[in-house]
Amino acid sequence: MQYLPSDYIRFREDRKAVVYLDQTALPNREIWKETDSLTEMYQAIKKLEVRGAPAIGIFAGYCMAVLAKGYYGLSGEAFLERLRADAAYLDSSRPTAVNLGYALKRMNRTAARSIDQGKEALLRALDEEAVRIHEEDISMCRKMGEYGITLLKDGDGLLTHCNAGPLATSRYGTQLSPVFLGQERGMHFHMYVDETRPLLQGARLTTWELMRAGIDTTLICDNMAGLCMKQGKIQAVLTGCDRVAANGDAANKIGTSSVAVLASYYHIPLYIFCPATTFDPDTATGDDIVIEERDPEEIRSMHYAEPKAPEGIKCYNPAFDVTDHSLISAFVTDRGIIRPPYDVNLKVLLEGRK
Amino acid sequence: MQYLPSDYIRFREDRKAVVYLDQTALPNREIWKETDSLTEMYQAIKKLEVRGAPAIGIFAGYCMAVLAKGYYGLSGEAFLERLRADAAYLDSSRPTAVNLGYALKRMNRTAARSIDQGKEALLRALDEEAVRIHEEDISMCRKMGEYGITLLKDGDGLLTHCNAGPLATSRYGTQLSPVFLGQERGMHFHMYVDETRPLLQGARLTTWELMRAGIDTTLICDNMAGLCMKQGKIQAVLTGCDRVAANGDAANKIGTSSVAVLASYYHIPLYIFCPATTFDPDTATGDDIVIEERDPEEIRSMHYAEPKAPEGIKCYNPAFDVTDHSLISAFVTDRGIIRPPYDVNLKVLLEGRK
Repeated sequence: MQYLPSDYIRFREDRKAVVYLDQTALPNREIWKETDSLTEMYQAIKKLEVRGAPAIGIFAGYCMAVLAKGYYGLSGEAFLERLRADAAYLDSSRPTAVNLGYALKRMNRTAARSIDQGKEALLRALDEEAVRIHEEDISMCRKMGEYGITLLKDGDGLLTHCNAGPLATSRYGTQLSPVFLGQERGMHFHMYVDETRPLLQGARLTTWELMRAGIDTTLICDNMAGLCMKQGKIQAVLTGCDRVAANGDAANKIGTSSVAVLASYYHIPLYIFCPATTFDPDTATGDDIVIEERDPEEIRSMHYAEPKAPEGIKCYNPAFDVTDHSLISAFVTDRGIIRPPYDVNLKVLLEGRK
Repeated sequence: MQYLPSDYIRFREDRKAVVYLDQTALPNREIWKETDSLTEMYQAIKKLEVRGAPAIGIFAGYCMAVLAKGYYGLSGEAFLERLRADAAYLDSSRPTAVNLGYALKRMNRTAARSIDQGKEALLRALDEEAVRIHEEDISMCRKMGEYGITLLKDGDGLLTHCNAGPLATSRYGTQLSPVFLGQERGMHFHMYVDETRPLLQGARLTTWELMRAGIDTTLICDNMAGLCMKQGKIQAVLTGCDRVAANGDAANKIGTSSVAVLASYYHIPLYIFCPATTFDPDTATGDDIVIEERDPEEIRSMHYAEPKAPEGIKCYNPAFDVTDHSLISAFVTDRGIIRPPYDVNLKVLLEGRK
């Protein structure tokens, strides 16, 4: 595949190393790293140098293809054994990342399938599978972009929350796919980016991705989104999503449900971008989704030169919230746009998925 | 007057210096300063060591009484002249602080009125006037607390935005007056404090005031207020207010209008605490209130060990927003509780004010 500047994970030209952008150095430094070392790969995921579930999956694919080249001297079963051990180790870097385990399994299966075809063909098959994982994600994002763009008008002001752009996924991102695709086609959007406390993914990452692409971007604090809507600056809200229940309730980064209430009050549509795989028919409603609580210090002291709240203060730090389905104008997926009533229309989508 | 621990501005015991808590050192250090120097007084206001319009007014009263003692050797007109010059200088420290100019005028008038009664009586009159300015503010806050407390139930979870507590006003604060008064009477509230980006007044100041008084306090990011409401943690929202238009539209710290929309959506009452002097009959609606925009670096880099958004990013940084009167359950003032319809009921209040 032909890499573009927004492909933040890729093969080195000789395919003997993975090259990736270290996200922890953003937005102040653009540091590209390359590695062919298992330990470094593990650390890259562990330390969030590579983050975002789809991006981690893509990274894992490339890692396996690179690692395999180091086992050129090993014979059939020993080769597979070694690769499986590496996969298990990489898989333990972020236990909850679904895409990671999925990509590793695909690479192991490809190796097993090609083991008897000679070493060259085997390594080539692994390279191709890694690229395929990457290309499939790009294609999925691009499809979301194609559907999403039909909902927007040239010149629209768009609000985003958190980060579900190219850094976290591939090339177009989910939430940002119609924006980047629109730009390719000469459309211009005015992006308003919630900084997204406490981890500031919007301020640190989304702004960086958009500015780098030359897209008009304005950073705001989370508590300014309502005023921007009231002032007519926002024509649509775009967010990503972590999990969708059978009734359409959607879990995403903390603050999404508040943005949704505000959008509804100001009669602005809210579009949630996610692949069809995000829909979970086994979760009846949002009430069944457990919300992770994180370290209070993320609010009190993280990022700061000095803590900004008294020592010993209690902090409530939920990582996600659930947006009620009644507040969601549509889901934009790689399989099309889903409108209410979600309990019916999501079922139709899921039946198509089988 | 008998000072309490929450009187953060006061005479030194000999009344020859002003003692005050340096707010810029909060929440990490509790530094009390004392001064009898005009330049230091000016700097204390300028550098926001003393902040909050009512607190600045109280501080200015004490400053004038202290400065006057240094002019013991001067005769009638020369004494007044010198005091007026000091007042003009102090007044220039924060040009837009209404209470500052008002307090300085009162002190000058008191001096002029008492100039012929002998030096001792003159200085005593100034001391008494300074204390009176302070006591009047306490009394006003206390009245708001008395009215406010009738709207709350023991055990309620209360959400606050920004800071309008004892540090910014006196003893009880405006927004927090029913909380502190309730505590005196054995009531227990569970306080949820919005951190209030970008200047973090909630995180730095409101939490500190509440914790110091032993009140149960939880800090949250601004984007978590909606989830707290949804989860049933919040029974009422309390805010202060900078200006109220004739129709009840209320300007306050950025984010207040969003909290108001969320409260309305979750059927939680929003009470705005302000003295009757906050109502401005010459402003027809909130549309006539110009919203101050502040330095983008407050969002991008202030407080941080390192900037958290790319260099050159545009930031929109409005300092205030206007909450539509339809979202306000009641105004709690020193003259009673005002309910809708505000266009009628505010007129009644203002006629009483004349």
